Amino acid sequence: MDKLRTALLGATGMVGQRFVKLLENHEMFELSVLAASSASAGKKYRDAAHWCIEGGVPEEIGEMPVVRADLEDVKKEGSIDLVFSALPSEVARAVEAEFAKAGFPVVSDASAYRMEEDVPILIPEVNPEHLELVKKQAKRGWKSFILTNPNCTSNVLILTLKPLQDNFGIKRVMVSTMQSLSGAGWLGVPSMAILDNILPYIKNEEEKVEREALKIMGKFDGSKIIPADFKISASCHRVNVLEGHTEAVFIELGSKADINQVIKAMKDFRGRPQELNLPTAPKNPIIVRAEPDRPQPRLDRYAGNGMSVVVGRIRVDPVFGNGIKYVLVGHNTIRGAAGNAVLSAELAVKEGYI
Amino acid sequence: MDKLRTALLGATGMVGQRFVKLLENHEMFELSVLAASSASAGKKYRDAAHWCIEGGVPEEIGEMPVVRADLEDVKKEGSIDLVFSALPSEVARAVEAEFAKAGFPVVSDASAYRMEEDVPILIPEVNPEHLELVKKQAKRGWKSFILTNPNCTSNVLILTLKPLQDNFGIKRVMVSTMQSLSGAGWLGVPSMAILDNILPYIKNEEEKVEREALKIMGKFDGSKIIPADFKISASCHRVNVLEGHTEAVFIELGSKADINQVIKAMKDFRGRPQELNLPTAPKNPIIVRAEPDRPQPRLDRYAGNGMSVVVGRIRVDPVFGNGIKYVLVGHNTIRGAAGNAVLSAELAVKEGYI
Amino acid sequence: MDKLRTALLGATGMVGQRFVKLLENHEMFELSVLAASSASAGKKYRDAAHWCIEGGVPEEIGEMPVVRADLEDVKKEGSIDLVFSALPSEVARAVEAEFAKAGFPVVSDASAYRMEEDVPILIPEVNPEHLELVKKQAKRGWKSFILTNPNCTSNVLILTLKPLQDNFGIKRVMVSTMQSLSGAGWLGVPSMAILDNILPYIKNEEEKVEREALKIMGKFDGSKIIPADFKISASCHRVNVLEGHTEAVFIELGSKADINQVIKAMKDFRGRPQELNLPTAPKNPIIVRAEPDRPQPRLDRYAGNGMSVVVGRIRVDPVFGNGIKYVLVGHNTIRGAAGNAVLSAELAVKEGYI
Amino acid sequence: MDKLRTALLGATGMVGQRFVKLLENHEMFELSVLAASSASAGKKYRDAAHWCIEGGVPEEIGEMPVVRADLEDVKKEGSIDLVFSALPSEVARAVEAEFAKAGFPVVSDASAYRMEEDVPILIPEVNPEHLELVKKQAKRGWKSFILTNPNCTSNVLILTLKPLQDNFGIKRVMVSTMQSLSGAGWLGVPSMAILDNILPYIKNEEEKVEREALKIMGKFDGSKIIPADFKISASCHRVNVLEGHTEAVFIELGSKADINQVIKAMKDFRGRPQELNLPTAPKNPIIVRAEPDRPQPRLDRYAGNGMSVVVGRIRVDPVFGNGIKYVLVGHNTIRGAAGNAVLSAELAVKEGYI
Repeated sequence: MDKLRTALLGATGMVGQRFVKLLENHEMFELSVLAASSASAGKKYRDAAHWCIEGGVPEEIGEMPVVRADLEDVKKEGSIDLVFSALPSEVARAVEAEFAKAGFPVVSDASAYRMEEDVPILIPEVNPEHLELVKKQAKRGWKSFILTNPNCTSNVLILTLKPLQDNFGIKRVMVSTMQSLSGAGWLGVPSMAILDNILPYIKNEEEKVEREALKIMGKFDGSKIIPADFKISASCHRVNVLEGHTEAVFIELGSKADINQVIKAMKDFRGRPQELNLPTAPKNPIIVRAEPDRPQPRLDRYAGNGMSVVVGRIRVDPVFGNGIKYVLVGHNTIRGAAGNAVLSAELAVKEGYI
Repeated sequence: MDKLRTALLGATGMVGQRFVKLLENHEMFELSVLAASSASAGKKYRDAAHWCIEGGVPEEIGEMPVVRADLEDVKKEGSIDLVFSALPSEVARAVEAEFAKAGFPVVSDASAYRMEEDVPILIPEVNPEHLELVKKQAKRGWKSFILTNPNCTSNVLILTLKPLQDNFGIKRVMVSTMQSLSGAGWLGVPSMAILDNILPYIKNEEEKVEREALKIMGKFDGSKIIPADFKISASCHRVNVLEGHTEAVFIELGSKADINQVIKAMKDFRGRPQELNLPTAPKNPIIVRAEPDRPQPRLDRYAGNGMSVVVGRIRVDPVFGNGIKYVLVGHNTIRGAAGNAVLSAELAVKEGYI
Repeated sequence: MDKLRTALLGATGMVGQRFVKLLENHEMFELSVLAASSASAGKKYRDAAHWCIEGGVPEEIGEMPVVRADLEDVKKEGSIDLVFSALPSEVARAVEAEFAKAGFPVVSDASAYRMEEDVPILIPEVNPEHLELVKKQAKRGWKSFILTNPNCTSNVLILTLKPLQDNFGIKRVMVSTMQSLSGAGWLGVPSMAILDNILPYIKNEEEKVEREALKIMGKFDGSKIIPADFKISASCHRVNVLEGHTEAVFIELGSKADINQVIKAMKDFRGRPQELNLPTAPKNPIIVRAEPDRPQPRLDRYAGNGMSVVVGRIRVDPVFGNGIKYVLVGHNTIRGAAGNAVLSAELAVKEGYI
Repeated sequence: MDKLRTALLGATGMVGQRFVKLLENHEMFELSVLAASSASAGKKYRDAAHWCIEGGVPEEIGEMPVVRADLEDVKKEGSIDLVFSALPSEVARAVEAEFAKAGFPVVSDASAYRMEEDVPILIPEVNPEHLELVKKQAKRGWKSFILTNPNCTSNVLILTLKPLQDNFGIKRVMVSTMQSLSGAGWLGVPSMAILDNILPYIKNEEEKVEREALKIMGKFDGSKIIPADFKISASCHRVNVLEGHTEAVFIELGSKADINQVIKAMKDFRGRPQELNLPTAPKNPIIVRAEPDRPQPRLDRYAGNGMSVVVGRIRVDPVFGNGIKYVLVGHNTIRGAAGNAVLSAELAVKEGYI
C-alpha cells in the first residue's frame, strides 16, 4: 500500500518531536508537511525546533521547511490524507475544526475537543469501539472528523485500569502522580523551580484525569457514550524527572481478587491493536515487574519502545474490602501522547475510517 | 534551672547531626556526651561525622571526642540526666535497654521499641497523655524508661490528622509519599540510582506508617493503648530532594466538613507543647498555605524552624462521601526525627517524668 | 544617623530579591521604594515577585506596592537618597542615566555602564580608590553618578586574585567556571535543558570576565584607569546548582611563591570595608579550606553570609614556572551581585560620596 | 572466522556492564565467561549485577552464571582466547598478571599496570604503534601480555589532542573537567553529596591525567616510550550528570593555527581503526559541532555509539600566543573505558597480537 501523506500540526514542541521520531520510517504514514506557529513558519525544521531527543533531528526531516499551521498553508504543500495535531489547546479548537470540516481526518493530542459528546477519546487497546462515534460529527457539517488522545496521565493510568474493570469491576480509584518535566513543554518548568523540589500542582490536570477516565471507560451505546460509574480522585505533582510519569494507584475492586489474579489479568491484557498487529502496538500493553523496587521512570520508560506501561508493587490495600494498590510508569510523550495518536491513526486506517 | 546533661547516641549520622544543631544552645539541655559506633570512637566529632548541614559543625562540639555508644563508656564521661538515641534500630534494641535499665531515660528515634505495648510513640502535640505509659516499663525491671519517636513519614502525617480526628472523625486515610534523600542516611541512596528517577519502594516504610498511626492516635485507658479504628494505606516513594517529605493525602472523614472548616481546624490546632510554651514548640504545628502551588519542600521545609508541617491544596475528594484531600510538607530530620525527640524530652521534663 | 532612603529598581528578579533580604533591617539604608517593570507596577511586592529565597518575603516589604522603574514614578514616592539597580542591562542604560542626571546616586548591578571610561566597577575590598572616578561623570552634565558592580563570575574570581597580585604579581589567568542557575534568572534555564546535563555556553560571559578583571585590577592615575597588564582567559559553563558559582583557576604568578605563602596571602587579605567595619563586610573576604574536597557550592556558598569567597585545593600548577591552581566558590547573587552593591554603597557613604 | 572466546573480569560493575552491552552480538568476540568477586560468584549474572543501563540485561547473558575472577575458576569454564578486565585496580594487579603469565592476553581498564615501562596504554586511533611494546613483557616470563586503557578522562582528552599535536604541535595543556557520576561506580557518589552541588576533587584523577597523556602521546623507539614533552595540568570535578565527561581545554599550540585549520584537523582526523574498519571504530573519532551551546553531555554522549568525542566552542585563547580553547564531551564508560578496550582488542587481533 502507498503510504498515507500526513501533516503534523505543532511539529516543533516536545510532543511534536515525538511524532517526528515515530513517523520517521513509519510503514503506513509519510510525514509530508510540518506545520507550526507563524514564528516557526519559513524556517527549516532543524532551526525551528528546540530538539531535545537523543540522537538528534532525523537528517531529511531537519531540512524540511515549516509552514504555518492553518488549512490554506498546509494545502499548498500538496495532497494530505491525515492530520496529526500537537497544537496547544487554545489554538487547536479553531484550526482542527477547519481541517475536519474540509475533509481531513484529525488525530489530536490537544484537549480542546476531548469532552465533546461526538468526539471519542481513544486508547486503542481500551475503547476501540468508541471510534464509531466519529460518524456523529457529520452532523456538524464536517466532511471528516476529529479523534482525540487522552491527557498523558490518564492514558497510562487507564491502560492499567482496563483489565481490572474487565475482570473484577472497579468501584473507586485514587491516583497520586509524580509527573515528568517533558509534560510541561520545553519552557514549562524553570530549573530554579524544581531542583531539590517538588511542585504539588499542575493546572487543570486533576480535573482532566477525573473526567476523561469515566468517558474512555464508558460504554458506547450506538449513539452516545455512557460514562463508567466508578469514582476517581487524583492528586498531581511535578518531579525532577525528564520523561516518564510515575503514578501510585489505590483501587477498590468490584469483586474479590487475589494478587496473582490481578497480575495475571494485567499480564494477559491484549487489545485490538495487538490482534491487528498494528505497527506501533507493543507486544504487551502492560508489563508487570516482580522486583520490589520497580517500576522506575529512568529504567522503565522506554519499555515496549515507550508504548508499554510498566506496573510493579501490586499489593493488597488495607483500606478497602477488595482493595489493591500498585505503582506504574508510562512514557508521557510516547504512550501518553504521540505514540497513542499514531496507534489510533493506525487503527482508524485498518478499520476503514481513514 | 541547671541544664540537664544529655548523652547523644548515634551522634554522627544525619539525624544525629540534627540533634547536635538543636541541642547547641538549648535552654534546658546540655550536650555532654557524643557517642557513636566503635569506628568513630576516639575521634573528634568534627572528624567522625560526615557533616552535611549548612553552616558547618558548631565550633565547640566539633572539638568534643566521640565515645562508644554503650553504657560503660558513656558513664565514664560523667553524670548524665537524659539520653537521646539516633542509633540504627538493630543496635538500638540492646543498647537503649541497657541505659533504661540502669536508670537513664532514653528518648529514641529508633524503631526498635515503638510497637512494644508499654512504650509510647510520642508526638507531643498529638498524644501527650501517652507519656504515662512509660510507668509500665517498671515491670521490666528498668529503673527508667524508653520513649520513642514515630517514623518520620508518620510523624508529619499524623500531626495533620489529629485536628481532623478531633473535629470530624476519620474513617479512611490513603497517603502517597515523595520522601527526601536524608531519610535514608548519608550513604542510603546512590546518586546513580536517583538522578532523573524515582524509587518506588522504601523498605518497611509502608508497614510502619500503617501501624504507627493507629497506635499514636489511639486512646490510653490507663493501662494500655487502644488503637484508633480508622483504616490507613500508604504508598512510599523516594524522590531527588535533599530534605523534607511531601505527602499527598486522601481522607474519608467521619462527618461532613466543608473545606473552610477543615482549614480552620488545622490552623487553630495547638497542643500541650504550645500551652506549656516548650522551647522547641513551633507557634503553629500546622501552617496552611492558600497558594495553589504550595507546599513545596525546598520552600517550606524550614517553616517553624522545621517543626511546623505545611499543608496546602485542601480540597474535596470526590471518591468518598465526606472526602477531602491535601498535600503536606514536613521536615523529616527535624519534625520527623530529632526535633520531635527534643520536644518530647522537653515535655517529659515539664511533666515531671525526667 | 538617620537611615538613607533608598529605591530599588528591578526589585522583583533574583538579584532584586537578594537586595530586599540584605536591606531588610539594614543599619544605614531603608528600603523605601520598590520599582520594577510596568507588568509589576501597581501590585503588592508579594504578588509581583516570584519569591524563591528560603524564609519567604519579609512581612512588611511584601505589603509594599511596586511602582514603575522610572524617575517620575519613583519620585512620587517621596525623597530618595540612593538608588540600587538590578535592572536588565537593556533597560538600565536609559533609566539609570535619568536618575544620575537628576541627582540620585545609582549603585548598579547592570552591565550597561561598566566599561564606560568614567564609571568605576567596584569591589570594595579590591579597588576602593576607583570610587573617585565617579567625579568625572560631572562632565556628562549629571548631578550625581553611577557606580557599577562587576559581573558575578568576575567578582568572586577577582577577590581571590587581588592578594596574589599584591604579593606575587600575576602574569596569566585561566578560569573554567561551573555557574549556578540563579545567575540566569528565574526563567533563564529550563529544567529540561539542565537535568542530567551541562550547558557549555553563557552568552557574553567570557567576554565580561576577560574585560572586567583588567579594569578592576587596573590603576587609577587620578584621571583614568590604566588596565592591569596580565592576560586572562575564561571558559564558562552552567551546571545544575541553585546558587553559588564554582571556578577552577590556573595562574602564572609574577614571582615564585610556595603554597603556604599563597594560603597566607589569601587568609590575611583584608580591604577597606574591613578597616571601616562596614555593616555588610565579611570578617574574611577569603576563607581558605584545607580539606581536599572543598569548597563545594551547597556547603560553602553562605560563608560570611554569602559575602566571603571560599578557596580550596591550592596547589602547584605544573604548566607554568610559577604556577598555582585552586578552586573557589562564591555566592553569585550575594557577593556576586546585591551584596557587593550594598557594600559599595556603604563604602560610598562612609567616604563621603553619598 | 570463528569468534574468539572471551572472559570478562569484573563483569558486574558499571564498566563491566558496558563490556556486556558491547560484546552482545560482537562479530569477533563471544562473551564466554563472566567473572567477578566472590560475593557474586555462583549467582546468575542478572542477580549479581546491579544493572543500570537502559534496556535491561541482555536476555541470554542474564542467565549466565558468574564465576570467581581468578585463573583457576575461569579456566574451568572452557577454553579462552582473550580476557577483558574491569577489575578494581587493587585486585587487578595480581589477577591480571596471573592470566598474562598463563598465556591469556589481557585487555584491561584497570590502572594497575598503566605506568609500567613495558605496558602500553592504548588509544587505537592515537598510538597503535605502541602495541608492539607488549612483546617486551616476555622478559617478565609471561606467555602473553597485558594491554591497558587510559583513565577515562585522559582518553577523551587525548583523542582531541592528537590531531593538534600532529598538525601544529602542543606546548601546554590545561584541562578543567566536569565528570559524570558513573565514573565513580554505582556506590561512588551518594546522592546527598551531589544534589545541588559540585565535588571539586576526584582522588588521584589529576595525577593520572597529567601522567598518562605524556606516555600515550610519546614516541615508541622500538625499545621504550619516550614521553611527549608538552606540559599538562588538570583540575577535576564531579557534577550531577549520569554519563559523559565534559572538559574545558586551554591549549598553547606549537605553531600558529587559525580556528578553521583547527576545526579541519579535528574533523579530518582518522586513525588505524578507521583504516582497518574495525567493528567498534566510529566513523569519526572526533565530531565538531558548530552550535554555540554544544557539546552537552546529555545530547552528545552517545555520538558514534559512545565512541566519538564531540568538540565545540573552538576559539582563540587570549592567554597564549598560539592559544586555542574548546569544550569536549566523551562517554566515559564507553569510549573512556569498555569501548576503548574492545577497540584495542580488535586492533590487537587484526595486527596479529591475539
